[in-house]
Amino acid sequence: MTTVQKQEQMYEGKAKKVFRTDDPNIYWIQYKDSATAFNGEKKAEIDNKGILNNRISALFFQYLEKQGVPTHFVELLNDREMLVKSLEIIPVEVVARNIVAGSLSKRIGQPEGTLLAKPVLEFYYKDDALGDPMINEYHIAALEWATPEQMDAIKAIALKVNEILKEFMDSLNIDLVDFKLEFGLHNGTVLLGDEISPDTCRFWDKDTKEKLDKDRFRRDLGGLEEAYREILRRLEGKLQD
Amino acid sequence: MTTVQKQEQMYEGKAKKVFRTDDPNIYWIQYKDSATAFNGEKKAEIDNKGILNNRISALFFQYLEKQGVPTHFVELLNDREMLVKSLEIIPVEVVARNIVAGSLSKRIGQPEGTLLAKPVLEFYYKDDALGDPMINEYHIAALEWATPEQMDAIKAIALKVNEILKEFMDSLNIDLVDFKLEFGLHNGTVLLGDEISPDTCRFWDKDTKEKLDKDRFRRDLGGLEEAYREILRRLEGKLQD
Ligand SMILES: Nc1ncnc2c1ncn2[C@@H]1O[C@H](COP(=O)(O)OP(=O)(O)O)[C@@H](O)[C@H]1O
Ligand SMILES: Nc1ncnc2c1ncn2[C@@H]1O[C@H](COP(=O)(O)OP(=O)(O)O)[C@@H](O)[C@H]1O
Ligand SMILES: [Mg+2]
Ligand SMILES: [Mg+2]
Repeated sequence: MTTVQKQEQMYEGKAKKVFRTDDPNIYWIQYKDSATAFNGEKKAEIDNKGILNNRISALFFQYLEKQGVPTHFVELLNDREMLVKSLEIIPVEVVARNIVAGSLSKRIGQPEGTLLAKPVLEFYYKDDALGDPMINEYHIAALEWATPEQMDAIKAIALKVNEILKEFMDSLNIDLVDFKLEFGLHNGTVLLGDEISPDTCRFWDKDTKEKLDKDRFRRDLGGLEEAYREILRRLEGKLQD
Repeated sequence: MTTVQKQEQMYEGKAKKVFRTDDPNIYWIQYKDSATAFNGEKKAEIDNKGILNNRISALFFQYLEKQGVPTHFVELLNDREMLVKSLEIIPVEVVARNIVAGSLSKRIGQPEGTLLAKPVLEFYYKDDALGDPMINEYHIAALEWATPEQMDAIKAIALKVNEILKEFMDSLNIDLVDFKLEFGLHNGTVLLGDEISPDTCRFWDKDTKEKLDKDRFRRDLGGLEEAYREILRRLEGKLQD
């Protein structure tokens, strides 16, 4: 039941535009069809990607809220748009990993697909000009990107999201390999923000090992729209039980 | 009072050789004159470097032991050699930083010399083939490079060493910018191992800001032997009070 009015655009990122509304507590997010990788070096427009990610993110956020995770999600508006709580984004991207893939495979010299004995969290300084460098909690504390108390909340939420989504995706016959989260402050409280979509997660079909995520774009595998559509199909199938 | 006998070489690293002795609890370390940088890509022989680092390391270890830091140091034997407790080296290099320099300056886009509001610890996986990649405590736990309990001991020792040496170097009119430590297990106990020398620390003269460390070699500034000799001179001046 939208009663807020869309106002001027605040910023445009690589995948979304963020608008103010007449309520300072609420922002209006519009998902774009742009796909980017390697810090924006590789770019394309993918038909319907914005629509699919908007719907997929909404389903994930709703599911997480039901399990007690504090997210910015307020309401799905239409195909490409959702309302969210206004956040002051913390400039730390949090990656959670269950299976070795991508940069971690290169970093530690272990093949993609290696199971991790415990979930791994990684922290990256959200700064496109620096290429989102990996950092740790000491950097975050010393440079005051987040307080230790905020980091405790962030780590707890990230690990909880991982437990919930790992089990949920498992029930869709999908391995949750890894994913990236962003957090922000809303009236001083840490909330999970941004998006949860095949752009920000690695999803592998458990039987075929087929990649159902942005690696299809990064690695020129084709079939990106179909893969994202398959994720949405499985999510809707389960959540409309 | 050496009573142990030097036996076969166990391994030769970039800066030191490690020999067994007839006592399984004791290894015999010989410091070489080789200087390397950038993961071994840049190499040279520097007259007397091994002698200077052996003496400097011995002084630092003795000073730290007196303040209650558990180190591998046993005894200075001669110009180039010391006895140490035998360690099973933990494959995690620990860097402690007080002032931004080197790789951290590039990583976070802040100029060398920026004071950090709190000490920063960083962890690197000790693996020359992978180029000693930066990792964090989640990687260390998941890949079982050290237990969380061992990491707690390692972090506590690293921060204590930093406090002690920062204050001590300050009294020699030197800024302790950053340094790298290695740890190992001796009969199950975590001990500080390896070396503490101008090869593994950044030392800046507080007045002239002159670099008195391996950056003179990395950056082709010349005067490496003289810089290391100056560090030894100031250490001996203070410790022979
Ligand atoms: N609830 C929110 N409030 C304010 N900003 C948000 C919120 N959720 C996400 N953002 C920010 O919106 C911006 C646009 O998203 P995106 O296009 O994915 O950007 P990027 O190019 O940084 O990946 C990002 O900076 C993201 O952190
Ligand atoms: N007390 C010890 N017991 C066993 N090994 C040690 C001890 N102290 C240091 N070492 C190891 O000795 C090796 C040789 O040192 P160095 O020449 O500095 O090697 P590197 O080429 O790895 O820098 C290193 O692998 C180091 O970890
Ligand atoms: Mg984004
Ligand atoms: Mg060494």
